[in-house]
Amino acid sequence: MDTNGILESIQSLSAKKIDSMYLNDFLLTWHKSEDEIVATFQTAEILRSMRKNNVSCRVFDSGLAVSIFRDKSTRTRFSFASACNLLGLATQDLDEEKSQITHGETVRETANMISFLAEIIGIRDDMYLGTGHTYMKEVAQSVEQGYQEGVLPQRPTLVNLQCDIDHPTQTMSDVLHLINHFGGIENLKGKKIAMTWAYSPSYGKPLSVPQGVIGLMTRFGMEVVLAHPQGYNLLPEVEEVAKSNSRKSGGAYTRIAGMSEAFKDADIVYPKSWAPFTVMEERTQLLHAGDHYGLKDLEKRCLENNKQFIDWECTEKLMRTTKDGSALYMHCLPADISGVSCESGEVEASVFERYRVPQYIQAGYKPYIIAAMIFLSKFKNPAEKLTELVNQNHQNE
Amino acid sequence: MDTNGILESIQSLSAKKIDSMYLNDFLLTWHKSEDEIVATFQTAEILRSMRKNNVSCRVFDSGLAVSIFRDKSTRTRFSFASACNLLGLATQDLDEEKSQITHGETVRETANMISFLAEIIGIRDDMYLGTGHTYMKEVAQSVEQGYQEGVLPQRPTLVNLQCDIDHPTQTMSDVLHLINHFGGIENLKGKKIAMTWAYSPSYGKPLSVPQGVIGLMTRFGMEVVLAHPQGYNLLPEVEEVAKSNSRKSGGAYTRIAGMSEAFKDADIVYPKSWAPFTVMEERTQLLHAGDHYGLKDLEKRCLENNKQFIDWECTEKLMRTTKDGSALYMHCLPADISGVSCESGEVEASVFERYRVPQYIQAGYKPYIIAAMIFLSKFKNPAEKLTELVNQNHQNE
Amino acid sequence: MDTNGILESIQSLSAKKIDSMYLNDFLLTWHKSEDEIVATFQTAEILRSMRKNNVSCRVFDSGLAVSIFRDKSTRTRFSFASACNLLGLATQDLDEEKSQITHGETVRETANMISFLAEIIGIRDDMYLGTGHTYMKEVAQSVEQGYQEGVLPQRPTLVNLQCDIDHPTQTMSDVLHLINHFGGIENLKGKKIAMTWAYSPSYGKPLSVPQGVIGLMTRFGMEVVLAHPQGYNLLPEVEEVAKSNSRKSGGAYTRIAGMSEAFKDADIVYPKSWAPFTVMEERTQLLHAGDHYGLKDLEKRCLENNKQFIDWECTEKLMRTTKDGSALYMHCLPADISGVSCESGEVEASVFERYRVPQYIQAGYKPYIIAAMIFLSKFKNPAEKLTELVNQNHQNE
Repeated sequence: MDTNGILESIQSLSAKKIDSMYLNDFLLTWHKSEDEIVATFQTAEILRSMRKNNVSCRVFDSGLAVSIFRDKSTRTRFSFASACNLLGLATQDLDEEKSQITHGETVRETANMISFLAEIIGIRDDMYLGTGHTYMKEVAQSVEQGYQEGVLPQRPTLVNLQCDIDHPTQTMSDVLHLINHFGGIENLKGKKIAMTWAYSPSYGKPLSVPQGVIGLMTRFGMEVVLAHPQGYNLLPEVEEVAKSNSRKSGGAYTRIAGMSEAFKDADIVYPKSWAPFTVMEERTQLLHAGDHYGLKDLEKRCLENNKQFIDWECTEKLMRTTKDGSALYMHCLPADISGVSCESGEVEASVFERYRVPQYIQAGYKPYIIAAMIFLSKFKNPAEKLTELVNQNHQNE
Repeated sequence: MDTNGILESIQSLSAKKIDSMYLNDFLLTWHKSEDEIVATFQTAEILRSMRKNNVSCRVFDSGLAVSIFRDKSTRTRFSFASACNLLGLATQDLDEEKSQITHGETVRETANMISFLAEIIGIRDDMYLGTGHTYMKEVAQSVEQGYQEGVLPQRPTLVNLQCDIDHPTQTMSDVLHLINHFGGIENLKGKKIAMTWAYSPSYGKPLSVPQGVIGLMTRFGMEVVLAHPQGYNLLPEVEEVAKSNSRKSGGAYTRIAGMSEAFKDADIVYPKSWAPFTVMEERTQLLHAGDHYGLKDLEKRCLENNKQFIDWECTEKLMRTTKDGSALYMHCLPADISGVSCESGEVEASVFERYRVPQYIQAGYKPYIIAAMIFLSKFKNPAEKLTELVNQNHQNE
Repeated sequence: MDTNGILESIQSLSAKKIDSMYLNDFLLTWHKSEDEIVATFQTAEILRSMRKNNVSCRVFDSGLAVSIFRDKSTRTRFSFASACNLLGLATQDLDEEKSQITHGETVRETANMISFLAEIIGIRDDMYLGTGHTYMKEVAQSVEQGYQEGVLPQRPTLVNLQCDIDHPTQTMSDVLHLINHFGGIENLKGKKIAMTWAYSPSYGKPLSVPQGVIGLMTRFGMEVVLAHPQGYNLLPEVEEVAKSNSRKSGGAYTRIAGMSEAFKDADIVYPKSWAPFTVMEERTQLLHAGDHYGLKDLEKRCLENNKQFIDWECTEKLMRTTKDGSALYMHCLPADISGVSCESGEVEASVFERYRVPQYIQAGYKPYIIAAMIFLSKFKNPAEKLTELVNQNHQNE
């Protein structure tokens, strides 16, 4: 997009009904309307094009973006830092070990104490099933209350950087990748995507990516197929979301038993490992109980169980069965690549390598998706603000 | 305050005699003159109002604000980061574990090495009695020397983020809260404040808050009453400061034995736990000696000793004995709340909850107090600089 | 330099042939041409003078500077943070423990994932002989490939913050110190510098400083003398570089056996401890094997071996044998100072103290050297960009 394209896209954005994104959080994609989802893609692309055209995206003169990472992170951490930096915010990590949180203070108190000058709070909390999303809601309610009570001069908004239920910054980047790959959101209609489990020699991987994928991809009239070995079910309520979405969007959502059936004639494949839901529940209990022996035992049992399904691998042979033998391969990264990062893993090395560049491009959308989420939650009239930025640049030239 | 109010307040600030704050540190409140203390409150309120009115407070084009946290911190860490960010400085934490400081280099050397482009150094060092303030003075002297010798192109100034003696960013925020609560600094005259010990099931809490409170609150003509169990004395030299202050300000400073007498007819109560001075001394020696067994034993003895005074709790019953039964409850947070963060603690849950919002508002002054301390130490004519910022904003409109 | 001096220096810079610095990395000084080395000194001095004259050096509106520290660091960490901040970049540390790197992802993948909005990557990796420089090259190739493939919208450039072979930000600062001390780069011609080993009660110190010194100082027609005990050899390929350099520059490079001969009539002395090359190799193998017993044993043997050479100390007596008894003493800091940071070390306390201020001034060049390396790699026409910054400032006045 050049400057004219940007201004046209801003024009289209201004027609979207997105009032309730203002001062609101981005926790689960299925809590956002069609217009809100599309506006997020548009804003991400506008910001990306602005940067490419050397138009400053700096809308904040000052302000903190607080990050809370309760699990390890490389790409999301850097994407969040990049997004905030692009808009003019300084990131400040809440390292719970270096804080006084263990002093017994409440979530409500901490949430307010870190937010006096915070515009944004980004949280990753995906380790404990049933707690990540709950924690985010508690933080969101706390700062909402603080804002209402006059404690906080502004309402910091939350961005879910991965919880136990959804991983919206990932899946929104995934869809933006599909939009650009297939030449428009309207072209997603009728496309078949296979979200399948794949074998990995590790255990305890969150369910948020496959859940997020079926919860989001079903909104664009796609044929979403989920396949996994017995026992590796996703949260039933998210499957309900997928079913409901697909009915509304004129697409389809089906769960089938095998990887080969899922791959057949697929336009897109997303083979990825995750832990069985029941294992995650048991793990959560053991972690809370601090039962290290139990955890070791669970890991052992789980890895052995995984091994039964070692043939769930995205191979060249399987890829040949997809639409024209050339489905788009996707992964949230890092992938377990057979013969590269492990002996047997989620994907054959030659498949991964062939799709490496598109993969990396897909990952590159994340900073802009996050920036868009921030932007739309902080400006009452985002289209006006974006126009202001573009015009300001013209004056500086 | 609107823009006119801000300009009036700047006018009043310009009349204050604050020359010696320039390029100077903020270590202990009692080393600052009346004018300097009042100027800090004024500047904090000016900056807070500027931000509220969308007037940029960014006075630094670049520059580092170095933080050194030798103890855990949430609110002070975020307050410091917020204050620096507001003024345009980037915070850089000196993590002593990730540095080469253990290589045997001197405080003087480290202080200079981190300061080549540093405008501000914020230090929290409250763990060891007799060392925190001493360390800060050493750092201050080192950078002063470096500046005089031409090693440092600018003089980074120090802000005490809590030492073993005082906690000025906390107590200055506390007083600013009182000023706003009672409608002016002149209205503090004659008010009775009860700074009292309170029971907590933890041990080793620093003395800097109660010391800072009696060292500062005695300057405004208040009736400051200190109450604590036998053996929980504060540093004698700080009590001397309190006595001297109260004489000069026309107030009073008294130490009394019991909590109930202290609360009687009080306008403000500040019940908070701290460790006995002698325990902190013993602890400092044991920590330096690395005597883990001795520390465990001390903790046990100390917790048992604390338990004798489990009835030192801020209850509804006690609150009813205060002035009109409605004294302002204060705490530096996080508080040990009975039945919430512990079984028996410093304060009854219903009392805390009733004062929760004012508490949080009180905590919200800290970023602006820190920003004011920085501002006044870095600009020779702060009133002129503030006027410039306000006028600049008018031009941009 | 005043503004006129700055503009003159920019004029001189514009005549240098430095095209290949654009979008290029700074890994080893001997991979840079004479013009490139000199341009780096000039740019560092221009930026330093600009800051002194309150001319903003902020050339980036946004952008990350990623740092990867695989070894402890104080001064380089703060120098890098200062340099990036001066130019308008926000530093983001890649803490490998908090990342998913252990998930088995490749260097290529991580390098791209952290670089979507990164302008600069600074790396310290000096612990393992034979790996630091190799790792940096791999990162550089990865982001070059990502840039070529369209994954990265800009080419982040690498700055070597110390590897196993060279320490260019240190040695370039050292030479800038010499240039300012002796009144011009042309005055270095014929000066004798003694790079000598010195005793230290620690072990495992990297070879990158002495190697960097002989690899860089030999370029200015200096007489570079290296002295160390038997077995403390440097990498043979770096000695070859030194020989070749000295031939081209009309200087000399010689290795001699003793400290006293090296110091004789020297204009500059640089006495510093390092580990024998063979020890570093053994250590690298033991570290990779996780052989803690072997490492303990190696340390013991190595410290005992060191002790044989406890008389390799920079004493007042030795200093008197230098040119006019007043050679310039240099060290990369922190030094092991006898009677201060250890019983017996690299240098007598009185020698160190006499040269303390010049030492600190020398260290103070590092932020500007790093800023210059960044600047020259990110702007196609650095002289034009610098002129723009100076003129912009005039308009603002």
